[in-house]
Amino acid sequence: MEPPVERNDIQRALRDLQDEICRGLEQLDGQQRFQEDIWTREEGGGGRTRIMNRGNLIEKGGVNFSAVHGPLPSVIQKEFGTSNNETFFASGVSIVLHPNSPLVPIIHMNVRYFELSNGTWWFGGGIDLTPHYIDPIMAGRFHQHLRNVCDRFHPEWYSEFKSWADDYFYITHRKETRGIGGIFFDKLGAEHGSKEFLLDFIISVGRAFVPAYTEQTGNRHMPFSEKQKQFQLLRRGRYVEFNLVYDRGTKFGLQTDGRIESILMSLPVLASWEYNPQVTPGSPEHFTLENLRKGLDW
Amino acid sequence: MEPPVERNDIQRALRDLQDEICRGLEQLDGQQRFQEDIWTREEGGGGRTRIMNRGNLIEKGGVNFSAVHGPLPSVIQKEFGTSNNETFFASGVSIVLHPNSPLVPIIHMNVRYFELSNGTWWFGGGIDLTPHYIDPIMAGRFHQHLRNVCDRFHPEWYSEFKSWADDYFYITHRKETRGIGGIFFDKLGAEHGSKEFLLDFIISVGRAFVPAYTEQTGNRHMPFSEKQKQFQLLRRGRYVEFNLVYDRGTKFGLQTDGRIESILMSLPVLASWEYNPQVTPGSPEHFTLENLRKGLDW
Repeated sequence: MEPPVERNDIQRALRDLQDEICRGLEQLDGQQRFQEDIWTREEGGGGRTRIMNRGNLIEKGGVNFSAVHGPLPSVIQKEFGTSNNETFFASGVSIVLHPNSPLVPIIHMNVRYFELSNGTWWFGGGIDLTPHYIDPIMAGRFHQHLRNVCDRFHPEWYSEFKSWADDYFYITHRKETRGIGGIFFDKLGAEHGSKEFLLDFIISVGRAFVPAYTEQTGNRHMPFSEKQKQFQLLRRGRYVEFNLVYDRGTKFGLQTDGRIESILMSLPVLASWEYNPQVTPGSPEHFTLENLRKGLDW
Repeated sequence: MEPPVERNDIQRALRDLQDEICRGLEQLDGQQRFQEDIWTREEGGGGRTRIMNRGNLIEKGGVNFSAVHGPLPSVIQKEFGTSNNETFFASGVSIVLHPNSPLVPIIHMNVRYFELSNGTWWFGGGIDLTPHYIDPIMAGRFHQHLRNVCDRFHPEWYSEFKSWADDYFYITHRKETRGIGGIFFDKLGAEHGSKEFLLDFIISVGRAFVPAYTEQTGNRHMPFSEKQKQFQLLRRGRYVEFNLVYDRGTKFGLQTDGRIESILMSLPVLASWEYNPQVTPGSPEHFTLENLRKGLDW
């Protein structure tokens, strides 16, 4: 019989996943390598931040691994309603890639494991795509990758996690989604399967990342106009709004004195805000804004 | 005897202040005019948003007036611990200016009046300066303007409101101030003076805005380098972080379904985030970062 999966196994699997994805992305970029920063956290644990800067495909991207532990930060104690003496362990891989070209989407992924000293544990994660210009066929292909992964684990998960993503990756004050969505899931615990099963699930999600994104980069060498670049910068502005105002991981990191440079690697090299920007009816920009909606069946 | 100051007088005084400041800023810019958008709020009231775009001095700036009323939004009910049936009235002028040149500071001002149907009322506001490059002499001159205004009303207010600004305009996760501070004050009510006296105070703060900023724009025609422009974009990124993560007015507006384009006029045309940017020891960039601290006596 196999020994049970423990936090060290999970941590190792996530670190290996980071390695695998970084190798895949370096190959995809074809030019630039990741720079690595290893950091430790005073209260316990640390991480490996890997950043790619000014690549051929990727203008700025981060693939972060962390495994941290210690006393539960007071902001989370409140949220969980747990006692003062609780300690936690958390490990995860987080990715955000901002490509050079407006014709290639921004992508994000996170997979994580969380454990409390009271014995509670769960897995969570998500992956979502933010095309600067929405192409429904490419959106459908992205979702097909995620559906394929989910279907191997549970027949309901894809549709459940897809609508969770629609709700999560939502810029409430703009009344628009961040992009074409993907999947989002949280608190997958013992009632959803064994640790082994759920670890297998998040690692499978992680392994879908490089092939799913590679397929989205077909336009990387296509020429683009100044207008398209401007639109990319505006769409990146919305990405910044989501991450700073709503993203739970970002807020958690900022509130718990996390490593700021690792947390905010998700922000683009350049973003733009214009007052009340208008788009031409019937234009690709207009089509994109019209389709930043929940509940679309790509 | 003068009739007592009522909400209509306050509203009129604030609207006139907007006019006066816009005239002053158009003269200062020397090239571009403000565009006006008049909006109304479904629950009651509305505003006049005035935006300057691509001026000679100002790349993007907004001078907003609003006067809104209606049922107290539930997020504020919670904060105030008031009853369900409370209504409110609020009026204010808000300004953020992002200049073209990295050698000219960003500036912000807000003055406001708030009133509840239970009879409570107060004034609040603030003005602070965010030089891309800190010059202690110019920082001192800015503070001198604010000290002069405050001293006409109360001998303790400048030092009190200056340290309040240090605490308020603080980017906690960066452990740095937004700029060289200024003054911040809130909940100035009957115990601080009559409505007439306090209205006079906030209008006097408002009238100090154009002369205080004009003095800061002496370098507007000086040539600057690409490196200085880059540093400006990074500093603007921090400004975005403050506004989206901490600024109470912004958060309030986003949570209460305010007019997004008016609220987010504070965000710059372009901002930048680099991973872990480094500055040369002894450089003006280094000097600036070293002086983004609370409690400096400019």
